[in-house]
Amino acid sequence: MSSNYRSFRKSVPWLILFLETVFIILFYFLFSGYNASISNISYTDFQDVNNMVIFGFGFFLAFLKRYSFSSTGFNLLIIVLGVQCSILMEGLLVLLLREAKEGDLKIITTAVVSMTAVVISSGAVLGKTNPIQLIVMTVVEVIVFQASRWINKRFLQVPDNISMMHVHLFGAYFGLAVSSRFSEPSPRSEKNASTPKSYLLSMLGTLFLWVFWPSFNSVLADADKTKAIYNTYFALAVSAVTAFTLSVLTTMDGKFRMTHVHSAALAGGVTVCYAAESIDYPWIAMILGLLASLITILGSFCLQRCLNPALKIHDASGVHFTFGLPGLLGAVAQVVLLVIKKWTVLPSLGYVVMIYIGAFCLTISVALITGFITGLILNFKLLKIIPVSKYFEDHFYWEFPHLAVGF
Amino acid sequence: MSSNYRSFRKSVPWLILFLETVFIILFYFLFSGYNASISNISYTDFQDVNNMVIFGFGFFLAFLKRYSFSSTGFNLLIIVLGVQCSILMEGLLVLLLREAKEGDLKIITTAVVSMTAVVISSGAVLGKTNPIQLIVMTVVEVIVFQASRWINKRFLQVPDNISMMHVHLFGAYFGLAVSSRFSEPSPRSEKNASTPKSYLLSMLGTLFLWVFWPSFNSVLADADKTKAIYNTYFALAVSAVTAFTLSVLTTMDGKFRMTHVHSAALAGGVTVCYAAESIDYPWIAMILGLLASLITILGSFCLQRCLNPALKIHDASGVHFTFGLPGLLGAVAQVVLLVIKKWTVLPSLGYVVMIYIGAFCLTISVALITGFITGLILNFKLLKIIPVSKYFEDHFYWEFPHLAVGF
Amino acid sequence: MSSNYRSFRKSVPWLILFLETVFIILFYFLFSGYNASISNISYTDFQDVNNMVIFGFGFFLAFLKRYSFSSTGFNLLIIVLGVQCSILMEGLLVLLLREAKEGDLKIITTAVVSMTAVVISSGAVLGKTNPIQLIVMTVVEVIVFQASRWINKRFLQVPDNISMMHVHLFGAYFGLAVSSRFSEPSPRSEKNASTPKSYLLSMLGTLFLWVFWPSFNSVLADADKTKAIYNTYFALAVSAVTAFTLSVLTTMDGKFRMTHVHSAALAGGVTVCYAAESIDYPWIAMILGLLASLITILGSFCLQRCLNPALKIHDASGVHFTFGLPGLLGAVAQVVLLVIKKWTVLPSLGYVVMIYIGAFCLTISVALITGFITGLILNFKLLKIIPVSKYFEDHFYWEFPHLAVGF
Repeated sequence: MSSNYRSFRKSVPWLILFLETVFIILFYFLFSGYNASISNISYTDFQDVNNMVIFGFGFFLAFLKRYSFSSTGFNLLIIVLGVQCSILMEGLLVLLLREAKEGDLKIITTAVVSMTAVVISSGAVLGKTNPIQLIVMTVVEVIVFQASRWINKRFLQVPDNISMMHVHLFGAYFGLAVSSRFSEPSPRSEKNASTPKSYLLSMLGTLFLWVFWPSFNSVLADADKTKAIYNTYFALAVSAVTAFTLSVLTTMDGKFRMTHVHSAALAGGVTVCYAAESIDYPWIAMILGLLASLITILGSFCLQRCLNPALKIHDASGVHFTFGLPGLLGAVAQVVLLVIKKWTVLPSLGYVVMIYIGAFCLTISVALITGFITGLILNFKLLKIIPVSKYFEDHFYWEFPHLAVGF
Repeated sequence: MSSNYRSFRKSVPWLILFLETVFIILFYFLFSGYNASISNISYTDFQDVNNMVIFGFGFFLAFLKRYSFSSTGFNLLIIVLGVQCSILMEGLLVLLLREAKEGDLKIITTAVVSMTAVVISSGAVLGKTNPIQLIVMTVVEVIVFQASRWINKRFLQVPDNISMMHVHLFGAYFGLAVSSRFSEPSPRSEKNASTPKSYLLSMLGTLFLWVFWPSFNSVLADADKTKAIYNTYFALAVSAVTAFTLSVLTTMDGKFRMTHVHSAALAGGVTVCYAAESIDYPWIAMILGLLASLITILGSFCLQRCLNPALKIHDASGVHFTFGLPGLLGAVAQVVLLVIKKWTVLPSLGYVVMIYIGAFCLTISVALITGFITGLILNFKLLKIIPVSKYFEDHFYWEFPHLAVGF
Repeated sequence: MSSNYRSFRKSVPWLILFLETVFIILFYFLFSGYNASISNISYTDFQDVNNMVIFGFGFFLAFLKRYSFSSTGFNLLIIVLGVQCSILMEGLLVLLLREAKEGDLKIITTAVVSMTAVVISSGAVLGKTNPIQLIVMTVVEVIVFQASRWINKRFLQVPDNISMMHVHLFGAYFGLAVSSRFSEPSPRSEKNASTPKSYLLSMLGTLFLWVFWPSFNSVLADADKTKAIYNTYFALAVSAVTAFTLSVLTTMDGKFRMTHVHSAALAGGVTVCYAAESIDYPWIAMILGLLASLITILGSFCLQRCLNPALKIHDASGVHFTFGLPGLLGAVAQVVLLVIKKWTVLPSLGYVVMIYIGAFCLTISVALITGFITGLILNFKLLKIIPVSKYFEDHFYWEFPHLAVGF
């Protein structure tokens, strides 16, 4: 087994190098110089989002006691590959469909934001995929997500910044579908446990995400960035408060559970992402934050007890209730708010509602179907699925200090 | 005892949910839409301060070996509650006293900055309060601090940005007064010790605070933000250098003590906060930084040996010498600098000096008195004071990983 | 031995206080007020760089298992001292040579950027120097680097922002030359080993540096900041990908090595620093990133096996291949790109090429020579070289928690 893997490892880097070479060649043909056209995205906005994705998610996913190297390291690897892939997709769309070319900062920022989908999906299969499977998943998911956004935009006329916010839904359901094709870890296994130290690392990532989430929801906003910032802040604040209270209510001993705080504190930000720009009063954002936290913690309770065992899905970092359910709630809330707001102009309303509902149903369907197919592909023998006994093991991929000579 | 606490825990979340519901309802009545009036605060400024309060202070207070979950978690909880409470107070003031309404970003930023007082107070009673006591303390302190600022503004004509900088003084003395009502931990207890790991976490928070402190001192500045930034940077730089040297001089073995570095490196930023905008030469800021570091380390020496045991105050994270004394020094320095600067216009000078001295004396008095009363309230049996044997224990509030099922 | 050191420690702080007093007095004479002239550097840019140097490098160097207090603490100490020293040098240059005075933000930012050289050098002797040696090294290096930049500017007409980017080369070779004068740790010593925890701390610093590197390369850019940002981002992305692949190829067991990821992921940023503003196509930056990663990992392989043992240099954190070699590659790449770009205007080309090659050769020579001399100075008995047996030991400098009384 081991020697089999060693030879595999030796052949793998050539695959990555080949991919990177293809990327560089495509960049050569697709991007003939920089395009500094002015957009309403500043470098600071981009930096915040970049920071969230690389640093925040890297540590957010570092909650497994034996998997912190891989969580932070592979997160960096798939993001830098995915961003390049996503930028190339954008370039191809411009070339093939003769769409207008955006400014460079917009393109890079869009690519980084859309990587959230991949990061969320990688959370669902955390510890169960080898780097090659992760890279294949990244490339497939980036392409499919871009395509899904393009369909949203072309056929349903969904604005770009709304279709981008499907990133949480898409990532969660794609990841779950992929995850359904991987065998579950043994329930008695201690390897996917967490230690206080690893929870604290995850807390570090969570606080980072929490602080920068308003930037995430406002970075691609067209009209009213400041409103998006306020609404996100209020939703996050209320969902953090609710996370603590609901955690006490749902745990056996009336104590706080760290994972509840991690996922529910962010739920408000996920839920409010669709409507952040259009909510006019803070109390609406606050109620959404409260509901988001509620659905996350109840979801975590129900899914882990009932649905996941029934469907034989092992959702390694709970992306279903951390990103999936709050995203769904947000998409529904957006429609409800729209109906309330535009009640007077009934005729056009029905059409718009159909469009919005269609958009997120389509996104979820595409995510589930392509995720399932990707899951099948990742189980090809060629990609060397790792044995269940080696799940959640840094040692399997990383040299460990006492073996390394010097720095 | 244990079952008593369990039932208490089960009833607690309803109290928090009730509070949150009241907040949402008040928001509904008080904030009829967003007010995007232009202020000189940018989103980046707000973000820096938000980052400091949530992330920086969260980890700054994580120096107790068994209390890092609570330090970072409860810090998030009280801040998000306190910010909402503070914004509501502002709304009430506008409604009741017909004051001019500020722009939204100004209101939120002011609320976040004023939460520093609560965070500092929570540092004084770190590990000795249960979440309910913390929440009651937060709500009381936010209201009293807002009232104290309003008195400063209305009766003493202290400018808004100066009265806001009383946040360190208020927080420290309020916290100390509250702390005086809590019993001391047993001196032989090992629980409030630190480990190298927890000191390192605290260092992480300290470096974060150190880097962003110039933003804190300049965010509400009216006239000359850049001057506030430079002066704060120089004061911080000198106080960091002095922290190292004085630490060696005051420890027995001539070694550095981590807590000295943590508190004294920040002292310069605290001291210079009042005069940051009005100091014209870097060397003045540098001397203030040096004095701040000096007063902090000497204060830590004297207070821990003499004053605290005499007054039976147990200052869990040394807020007296980290924020209290440097704040006092800063308030005095501001008056001295004013006297030197306006020596030529003697008549009006006396009045202004009286006002400034009155402002900080008033702030400290209000903090001490209301803090003492709050301390009494927190000891009501209804709030279930925790037994001394359970001080500084994460286990008392948090489920621990090996007990939790999955993520 | 121990008592000898204790008395030494007791005398040391007076030296630092003396230095700080001299600084304050010089500031008094050299900086008569603030100069808020407008530059194209914003506070946010400065903050990013400040964050990188204090927080990013502090944790980047925290990879030794017993040296994390010193890595983060001494990093803060030398930076705050060095920044003051660097600002004073600038003031002296203005006074003595009647150069035009820059805006304050430019001066501070330049000082912080130039501290990178000192931080890199301190990485080369990490764990082998006592604080006094570090401080002496900092002061000497700041002065020499400023002088080297001044020669570059005055006699070779190298633009300011290019000569500033020699900071990596200068820091690496100065540090190596200093390091050559220190005895090597015993090869069987376990003290300079790393633990998974310390690697993770270092990863935290690395990700921070990675995210903010585009700010570093663009902060002092004159013409085209956005181009510098894009090129740096692409170079970093490719070098991160390449780091993972090459790490697998060069390690025995086909696993990833954390130190490879740490150093090679940043190599792209170092390499592209010279040409960041002038590269017109992303693919060029990407190829540079790939080559940078390649040279770093091959360098780490060759240097540690062949060159370092032969020259008896112990490069504690591998600055030679992390900053030295990629810096060299970048300097050469800049010349090659210039030749390709200006092929048509041959006559002037030769001169410009000579200037650029001269500039970096001069910088390296100055760094090596002055570094060697500094190494000799640091070994004066007066500075109390620490015994090899005490290398890499926090305990030697820091009080440890179980010994400290309270906070």
